[in-house]
Amino acid sequence: MLTGSPARQRQVDYQAILEEISTQVRQHLGKGKVADYIPALARVPADKFGMAVRTVDGDEYRVGNAEEPFSIQSISKLFVLMLAVSRLGDLVWTRVGKEPSGDPFNSLVLLEHEHGVPRNPFINAGALVVLDLLMHGVRDSRRLIRDYLRVLSQNFALDFDRHIARSERRHAHTNLALANLMKSHGQIAGHVDRLLDVYCHQCSLAASCLDLARACLPLAASGYSPLLGEAVLTARQARRINALMLTCGTYDSVGSFAYRVGLPAKSGVGGGIVALVPGVLSVAVWSPELDRSGNSYVGTAALELFTTITRHSVF
Amino acid sequence: MLTGSPARQRQVDYQAILEEISTQVRQHLGKGKVADYIPALARVPADKFGMAVRTVDGDEYRVGNAEEPFSIQSISKLFVLMLAVSRLGDLVWTRVGKEPSGDPFNSLVLLEHEHGVPRNPFINAGALVVLDLLMHGVRDSRRLIRDYLRVLSQNFALDFDRHIARSERRHAHTNLALANLMKSHGQIAGHVDRLLDVYCHQCSLAASCLDLARACLPLAASGYSPLLGEAVLTARQARRINALMLTCGTYDSVGSFAYRVGLPAKSGVGGGIVALVPGVLSVAVWSPELDRSGNSYVGTAALELFTTITRHSVF
Amino acid sequence: MLTGSPARQRQVDYQAILEEISTQVRQHLGKGKVADYIPALARVPADKFGMAVRTVDGDEYRVGNAEEPFSIQSISKLFVLMLAVSRLGDLVWTRVGKEPSGDPFNSLVLLEHEHGVPRNPFINAGALVVLDLLMHGVRDSRRLIRDYLRVLSQNFALDFDRHIARSERRHAHTNLALANLMKSHGQIAGHVDRLLDVYCHQCSLAASCLDLARACLPLAASGYSPLLGEAVLTARQARRINALMLTCGTYDSVGSFAYRVGLPAKSGVGGGIVALVPGVLSVAVWSPELDRSGNSYVGTAALELFTTITRHSVF
Amino acid sequence: MLTGSPARQRQVDYQAILEEISTQVRQHLGKGKVADYIPALARVPADKFGMAVRTVDGDEYRVGNAEEPFSIQSISKLFVLMLAVSRLGDLVWTRVGKEPSGDPFNSLVLLEHEHGVPRNPFINAGALVVLDLLMHGVRDSRRLIRDYLRVLSQNFALDFDRHIARSERRHAHTNLALANLMKSHGQIAGHVDRLLDVYCHQCSLAASCLDLARACLPLAASGYSPLLGEAVLTARQARRINALMLTCGTYDSVGSFAYRVGLPAKSGVGGGIVALVPGVLSVAVWSPELDRSGNSYVGTAALELFTTITRHSVF
Repeated sequence: MLTGSPARQRQVDYQAILEEISTQVRQHLGKGKVADYIPALARVPADKFGMAVRTVDGDEYRVGNAEEPFSIQSISKLFVLMLAVSRLGDLVWTRVGKEPSGDPFNSLVLLEHEHGVPRNPFINAGALVVLDLLMHGVRDSRRLIRDYLRVLSQNFALDFDRHIARSERRHAHTNLALANLMKSHGQIAGHVDRLLDVYCHQCSLAASCLDLARACLPLAASGYSPLLGEAVLTARQARRINALMLTCGTYDSVGSFAYRVGLPAKSGVGGGIVALVPGVLSVAVWSPELDRSGNSYVGTAALELFTTITRHSVF
Repeated sequence: MLTGSPARQRQVDYQAILEEISTQVRQHLGKGKVADYIPALARVPADKFGMAVRTVDGDEYRVGNAEEPFSIQSISKLFVLMLAVSRLGDLVWTRVGKEPSGDPFNSLVLLEHEHGVPRNPFINAGALVVLDLLMHGVRDSRRLIRDYLRVLSQNFALDFDRHIARSERRHAHTNLALANLMKSHGQIAGHVDRLLDVYCHQCSLAASCLDLARACLPLAASGYSPLLGEAVLTARQARRINALMLTCGTYDSVGSFAYRVGLPAKSGVGGGIVALVPGVLSVAVWSPELDRSGNSYVGTAALELFTTITRHSVF
Repeated sequence: MLTGSPARQRQVDYQAILEEISTQVRQHLGKGKVADYIPALARVPADKFGMAVRTVDGDEYRVGNAEEPFSIQSISKLFVLMLAVSRLGDLVWTRVGKEPSGDPFNSLVLLEHEHGVPRNPFINAGALVVLDLLMHGVRDSRRLIRDYLRVLSQNFALDFDRHIARSERRHAHTNLALANLMKSHGQIAGHVDRLLDVYCHQCSLAASCLDLARACLPLAASGYSPLLGEAVLTARQARRINALMLTCGTYDSVGSFAYRVGLPAKSGVGGGIVALVPGVLSVAVWSPELDRSGNSYVGTAALELFTTITRHSVF
Repeated sequence: MLTGSPARQRQVDYQAILEEISTQVRQHLGKGKVADYIPALARVPADKFGMAVRTVDGDEYRVGNAEEPFSIQSISKLFVLMLAVSRLGDLVWTRVGKEPSGDPFNSLVLLEHEHGVPRNPFINAGALVVLDLLMHGVRDSRRLIRDYLRVLSQNFALDFDRHIARSERRHAHTNLALANLMKSHGQIAGHVDRLLDVYCHQCSLAASCLDLARACLPLAASGYSPLLGEAVLTARQARRINALMLTCGTYDSVGSFAYRVGLPAKSGVGGGIVALVPGVLSVAVWSPELDRSGNSYVGTAALELFTTITRHSVF
């Protein structure tokens, strides 16, 4: 992170920028496709759009449906990783790699070739291993994860969508295959069924853009949460999670995403994306239609506009 | 890139930092292995170490063997890409992808599965495709590439190491396999033998850390070359090449490299690495011993120290 | 199958041959390794050796532990396939391929690349699909399979080893991964857990060499069971299952096995192998130590001796 | 091989059978596709059909264009293997495997994963390795191979089609990729260009069904050539080459071919297939249109009819 915050000095008018983006991205509606692998997700209206910014100085900006909760899906992998790293430190990296996989998020191929050790914590296999680690010795893991997100976002109404969680569980065959394959390699300590239950719950967490921008803020602020007035990660941990987001956070289009947007980010098939400008701000966007890689079509376009206008790319 | 340059304001003592790094990294000598796939490279003394920094403001700092030329090898892929992008623009991206491959730099597997279209311009297959594009209609491609690097570095003595070039050509079987496989998919327009000849020459270019830091500087300066007093790339092109370096520039350890160093970088098996702090400076380091992925062992450690001390990580 | 039975005309002394083989193979004891992926299998004494021959003319020969039941494991895939083909005919081949996989028996890689359609019915994935088909509309599939083997072998005491079945079920993670992956591709109609339960039971069936030689006999006799006095398969079905055994029946060493032994065969990790001389006889051998591919080390050597001495190779 | 020859005893009317087949297969004309990867092959009339049988007793039968030479292509791999095995014995198997590859004939994937050692001598990579071995110390390898086929077939007019050979050479990029990849793994001793030259010539050999049936005959006769009155292979070698043909001889449809035809066979993209009934006869068929795997569409159907009518399947 660069010390000092040039953005502050430039007095960027984020509210005007968000509104401009909100107008411009409307042209892209209809170009992507709402996730339909579980029925509950397929029912979300395709034209929802929300975006929220929270600066490290405490200012907040929002546009559209920025306060409406949606299914965060894989964005939960980021919070579970933050939680695991804060509790277990570098132990996490003995069980999961830090490299982009070059394969789809739910591929079993590399797992088989690499002894069940997932390439990174943002593909499904890696997220399952991190969760397995986190669950060890914890009585109520679902609650632990939910409460962590509640505290980070300071929204104590934030909760699972139990309807989504059940639907995920019924369609979890690929994840069951991943978990069982890793179990067969001795990479999963706990019970596969219990692991899948918690995993489906973490994916079903419902949060708004504003909740997510608030909850991610420590990653833009050297691990410090301005909302809590305390550090939730070390500066080094925050910086490194950012690096992982940039190289592995947006499924199998991390290269294109870095090329277009230029920010560390994590996306979910619910249509949400969170991104960070280190030292400056966190931003979250939501639009349900996805591109071929599973990232929000409009959300990516909105973030690309955001870095083009604000020049906030890390590059 | 963040506008404004906090580093300038902070008055960092780069000379002291380079000297400190030079001392600290000595402990890592002997932990890596000098490249031996061609005999000419294997003869380079393992204890060479040089490092050079050039800021966008025009200051230069160096330590150790920073002015001694060495074989830049894959770092040449960066300059050939810059040259191709500056001459052909987005046409380049119709022939090569922008995603990390997840496989070693010389793998044929993905090529076969993906119709001969390489994942990115920094794996060998991608570099060959970019070179093939660049060579189209050019009478003397070897000279074009050499002169581009001469101009960027303002070192007109910079040249091929013909001994290395010949040695590369004799051991080019894997690259011949890659080029022929792509040719069979119709992805290479020119003659395979001529392509390999130019490729082996570009890899054999000999340059010093100082040359490389100077030549890369436009990538840290929105495409502008302070040495030439003119732009060699658009700001957008420069930013995007940086993004590619971060996600694909250091063989199959891009994730770990981003995690440890946190800067866009390109490495070569000659032991050189160039890296960029957007808006601030370029840095080049040389130490011949390589880690398992083919990146300089000591060079990576030196850059990690550099970003730890200067806090110049992009994250 | 060649019409007429030259062996009959030659008056081969099978009893003497079996005894000769039994002596000669002792030198190979200790070269393989008893299967240890489930504890119950690992406890079988390594020096067991039995062999039984049954000719289409009704003669039987045996040596060593030929009447001692052992865990037939993957040999059960052969009987489940015979049963499925006899009940469902060519419908079976709409759900599973007929090609060697080139990968280990429990690999998930090809499955992922080929939309969950297994290469052949003798790799685990293919056996699971065939079983899923067979189970459709059947009330007690475990019993159906057991009784089929009882009738074919005319041994009504033949049964599951429930201890083995339970042990299999507890270590079924790889098969659970396979089944769930296929389920995610829509290739499995039934419940994965129920499927695995029946699968682990079929693998746990305990039969002797004599039982197996009798039960396989229809494959050497154009589908006709001399024991039952009726056809259990059409001649065409029998011939084609033999073809599949030769190209896919012995894990990832089908080529070497065909090269050395030259007979259609199916092996199991319990150390059993059944093989057929079309038009002449069936033969079963048991020795628990396995080679690297999972075939009985001594069993393969015994069959190689058998075809060398009798000249019964199909080639 | 079964001793004794039941076919002899049955007095099969092969001439009538060939004529019957010739009539029945006409319905399949137009269902396949003539090879077009080199222009010279694409010009062969699609409606050519020839078939020839030679029994171990010396009788010959033929129908259609059975005496018209065509490009034998990959069938040459069989003769080069016979020649290499007869000269070098088991040394051949230290350099190439005996297992079906599960991948297309020109795939590089397994090569890369398995250190450049090809799975079997009938995929292109394996044929190149066998040829490299054979060429060692030989002054004129092209002539050696041609003359071997001349002697086996007793047709001294048999020759290369130099037009085809040149065309092959110009389109040899995939094979160049394979050879260079193996060279990079140290699996090819000779010069890649010289190897490719001989390889393209062996593929261009022009022979008729009658030539091929005669030349293959030793494989059906325990290695003995009735035409030459001497053994060209040991019985063991002949039997083992048959085993390899059955498990690896018909590209990536060996399983289906064994299932339908049930004979050891080797096919070529010129539309030829040779097959063997051990102890009884050799048969060759030619029809230029290919199925998806590269085997003659009509040729496979003709052989299926042949084994259905004669009951000559080995199963």
